[in-house]
Amino acid sequence: MDAYQAIIGKRDRREYDGKPISDDVLHRILQAGRMAGSSSNTQTVRYIVMRDEAAKEKLAPAGPGTAPLVKAPLAIVIVQERGRRDFDVGRSAQNMMVAAWAEGIHTCPIGLREEAVASEALGLPETHVAAIGISFGYPAPSTAAGESRPRLSIEELVHYDRW
Amino acid sequence: MDAYQAIIGKRDRREYDGKPISDDVLHRILQAGRMAGSSSNTQTVRYIVMRDEAAKEKLAPAGPGTAPLVKAPLAIVIVQERGRRDFDVGRSAQNMMVAAWAEGIHTCPIGLREEAVASEALGLPETHVAAIGISFGYPAPSTAAGESRPRLSIEELVHYDRW
Repeated sequence: MDAYQAIIGKRDRREYDGKPISDDVLHRILQAGRMAGSSSNTQTVRYIVMRDEAAKEKLAPAGPGTAPLVKAPLAIVIVQERGRRDFDVGRSAQNMMVAAWAEGIHTCPIGLREEAVASEALGLPETHVAAIGISFGYPAPSTAAGESRPRLSIEELVHYDRW
Repeated sequence: MDAYQAIIGKRDRREYDGKPISDDVLHRILQAGRMAGSSSNTQTVRYIVMRDEAAKEKLAPAGPGTAPLVKAPLAIVIVQERGRRDFDVGRSAQNMMVAAWAEGIHTCPIGLREEAVASEALGLPETHVAAIGISFGYPAPSTAAGESRPRLSIEELVHYDRW
């Protein structure tokens, strides 16, 4: 798929069919995350790839909207060093999600607000926190042609040279 | 350019030639940022497109590495509502930078650590902060074939089901 079309076409979707995601596709998704740049090349983000049902189920109480993470055939939690900004997390997440979109896979970022619950479920060391979860799956037939949520216009989003 | 190749090929580079970036290309870059998803579709990020030399020069004291922002033919500062995470900033930045890469344009995120200086230079309201600057330009001949900084291996980056 063309890069620009993948970037502007990607929507956040969270209803999937049960078809598994192959190891080859998973490898490309991880490679997309890996190749995102990081602040001064510090490379502080890590990935927890989750396909085990029982492991995913433990994340259910980590936030109000975690059901898609549990139901998705693949979830990836991006872990960041404690106290760092989420900018590199966002770069890496977007790379993985656009790469997945180009493979016909839908994704959605899912907040894990209950930090202690997520840390316990994932066995994280004190030095790291679960910054975001991402659900991955082939689209459920009912949502494949779903509507997009509206976006502000470029005129509303952009200032020139100064606010 | 193929989406996956653009995503994994993109490097952060900050040496540009002086060739201007056309309005058409700028529009696609902004559209790429605009179409990045945001938390609950809150759409809290805004863009300041900077091509005026004097305006960019005012950002010079906003951080230790701002020279590329000033020298680049195009700089875009992503502004975020105060107090929010940088996750959506990172998503939007990565979309713009990968879209630019697919056009043959190199980019680099540049921190604006001196928040008060950046806010004054950009005329930001109290409710918003400059989250990141991004420099954009066609590559200088000397850097077009530059080396990449090393990345950790997938084995070092990834855990399975649990840390």
